[in-house]
Amino acid sequence: MQRISTHEVRAHVGERVRVEGWLQSLRQMGGINFLVLRDGWGTLQAVAETEAEIAPLLESAAGVESVIAIDGDTVEMPQAPGGIELHNLRIEVITPVSEVLPVSLNKRKMAANLTTLLDHAAVTNRNPQRRAMLRIGAGVMAGFRTVLTARAFTEIQTPKIVASATESGANVFKLDYFGRPAFLAQSPQFYKQILVGVFERVFEVGPVFRAEPHDTTRHINEYVSLDAEFGFIENHFTVMALLRDVIAGIIAHLKESYAAELELLRVVMPVVPENIPYIHFADAQELILQRYGVDVRGEPDLSPQDERWLGEWAREESGSDFLYVTGYPMQKRPFYTHPDPERPEYSNSFDLLFRGTELVTGGQRLHRYEDYLAALEKAHLPIEPFETYLEAFRYGMPPEGGFAIGLERLLMQLTGIPNVRLATTFPRDLNRLVP
Amino acid sequence: MQRISTHEVRAHVGERVRVEGWLQSLRQMGGINFLVLRDGWGTLQAVAETEAEIAPLLESAAGVESVIAIDGDTVEMPQAPGGIELHNLRIEVITPVSEVLPVSLNKRKMAANLTTLLDHAAVTNRNPQRRAMLRIGAGVMAGFRTVLTARAFTEIQTPKIVASATESGANVFKLDYFGRPAFLAQSPQFYKQILVGVFERVFEVGPVFRAEPHDTTRHINEYVSLDAEFGFIENHFTVMALLRDVIAGIIAHLKESYAAELELLRVVMPVVPENIPYIHFADAQELILQRYGVDVRGEPDLSPQDERWLGEWAREESGSDFLYVTGYPMQKRPFYTHPDPERPEYSNSFDLLFRGTELVTGGQRLHRYEDYLAALEKAHLPIEPFETYLEAFRYGMPPEGGFAIGLERLLMQLTGIPNVRLATTFPRDLNRLVP
Repeated sequence: MQRISTHEVRAHVGERVRVEGWLQSLRQMGGINFLVLRDGWGTLQAVAETEAEIAPLLESAAGVESVIAIDGDTVEMPQAPGGIELHNLRIEVITPVSEVLPVSLNKRKMAANLTTLLDHAAVTNRNPQRRAMLRIGAGVMAGFRTVLTARAFTEIQTPKIVASATESGANVFKLDYFGRPAFLAQSPQFYKQILVGVFERVFEVGPVFRAEPHDTTRHINEYVSLDAEFGFIENHFTVMALLRDVIAGIIAHLKESYAAELELLRVVMPVVPENIPYIHFADAQELILQRYGVDVRGEPDLSPQDERWLGEWAREESGSDFLYVTGYPMQKRPFYTHPDPERPEYSNSFDLLFRGTELVTGGQRLHRYEDYLAALEKAHLPIEPFETYLEAFRYGMPPEGGFAIGLERLLMQLTGIPNVRLATTFPRDLNRLVP
Repeated sequence: MQRISTHEVRAHVGERVRVEGWLQSLRQMGGINFLVLRDGWGTLQAVAETEAEIAPLLESAAGVESVIAIDGDTVEMPQAPGGIELHNLRIEVITPVSEVLPVSLNKRKMAANLTTLLDHAAVTNRNPQRRAMLRIGAGVMAGFRTVLTARAFTEIQTPKIVASATESGANVFKLDYFGRPAFLAQSPQFYKQILVGVFERVFEVGPVFRAEPHDTTRHINEYVSLDAEFGFIENHFTVMALLRDVIAGIIAHLKESYAAELELLRVVMPVVPENIPYIHFADAQELILQRYGVDVRGEPDLSPQDERWLGEWAREESGSDFLYVTGYPMQKRPFYTHPDPERPEYSNSFDLLFRGTELVTGGQRLHRYEDYLAALEKAHLPIEPFETYLEAFRYGMPPEGGFAIGLERLLMQLTGIPNVRLATTFPRDLNRLVP
């Protein structure tokens, strides 16, 4: 018989079908055996009322996570998970597993500490909740690409091995490149800007590498960055308008194609306003003073507490989970940031806060060659390592800008998990290189 | 006036429009100035019949690659490139460029050697032919994802920093990971197999790193790999059937969405047969003897000349640009390769030849834990570095297989360019780390 997937079974009520997958659980209750089979689409309950039906499992000592095939009659059964189950089973063992699992996968919350979960990620990722989390990640990438492709953005893949550590501050991983020193790219920032000169509108979904020695719930050292960059903008508000549509497109795509996963994880999906409210950095500091009585004016950046307050204000004032803070002081932004022409100590950049935490950073970049030369000099940076980058501006660049979304951070904030490590299949952190 | 793109101009014949982009060329012929403007979509000719119209260019010494806006009347003009042009121009200079370009971009074939082209890739990638090549690459990635997403494959992003050099043979880049040795992933092979245990069907589009010290027209040290892997296969023929559909889907997507680029590069698109012909490795060697009089029987692999002969045979015999060679000897395949159950010295693996050159490698993998232990022992490999990988099989894996397509190689073979470096934005080779 031809195999069908667990999610196709519903269309075959009353028929005999064949499903194949992993034996997720096997429980005996009053002489009846309840099996749960998991495949690439979901899970399905099968009920064996006789010992003979499960004999193939017993004969090959096949326990949970064995790969099996089940032929059975499809029966509607309101009390079954999903309202459907298989009866009169004929079971075939494809790959028997008799070893005890390092962690029981068949619980909503796996009873193991984080280290054990991550050490055995090859298996613990099979837990339906873990799997749903990772699949939502796939949905975010797909949604991101869909919105941007529809707007004539070209997908790029830029080098991850680079000749110099370019972004100021952040630590980089060093590499031996045929005897020469090289580095892992901390971001595709320079390449995506260069490629605005080629394609006008570009995006990239790819790994970035940060050698920051921070052991927190919000840091991993390799993550997936969703980058966009485009030319012929008015200023950072053009970028913010695009980012709004990208976020809305991602949310819409998840709702449409990942409803089961969102439900399984009980994700409260945000509404993305037509116009995300925004507040200037300086006004945000004033607001914090007036509303919360704390004077943070003069600080060059917002603290996590400041962001939570602003998130609270946006929710109460505008009913929005999202808030743009614009015009961060130039001193805290990278050298390529475009200043506010009216108030040059502030920048044409922004952060997007989601539920009181920074989710995305972006802005307008410098686009005139002379401005880059001046900015590098001001930052006491040499010109030589930036020569290729500068070439893009030397030979004509329109006003341009962009943003970068950290995939794992977005998943963490969207699903409310407590540790960013759980938003990725195989995290890399200060102490973890395997699996 | 609102900007429109060059490809929207056709819908506005008789109207006044505004376009913005790069001044790709400016030619004077008999007192008339012909401008070509390039934006993210394509190019458009604009004709200035008076000196006054181009005065803004002269005033700011704005030469080619200056970023400009042109307001003009849209006129149908059969002899103009694309059949349309702008008249009665009002030009505005957005970013003037007065420097001479390192290479003239406005030629079908840029008159510079490869080194110069690559040194100045930030600018030379703006050449319309170069840009078309790179955009076709974006189309390949999109086509690949579309086919697999429609078949319930889940997109994965696996770590690029890994603890051990896993694939036998190929050289790896070494890395300092917080004082510990680490490596750059040569392929997502192990992770994609592990994740078959999680999602059943997976794909990845991402960078891979090969430290092979080869300086040839076909080698780069960082490239984009299009990987797929899936469970519940019959054998390698299930994988070959999927790969056929993936290639056909990519070709169809390119024809549908990248017709202009294909035309610009004069790409002769292949027809993908419903059933790609195949020949067993041993039969291929017999065929070479009978048809070409050269006895390569007993050789463990096919030479490039063998592949060309087989490609010639497939074209003449079956009218096909594609040919599968199946059953490569086990001794030349990695340890995880599944043997042919009937003839265990041969494998359940294949190469896909395209026009006489290897394009894709794939096959069925081992899926039983015991088989892995035996295969590692036979290959004299230790178990310890593979422990996480083995865990996936220890806890239940169905028969599975997959393949990997090298994006740049595919582009090279499809478009007929002589050097794989030209199939990527910023190549990495033995001597090149910048740009």
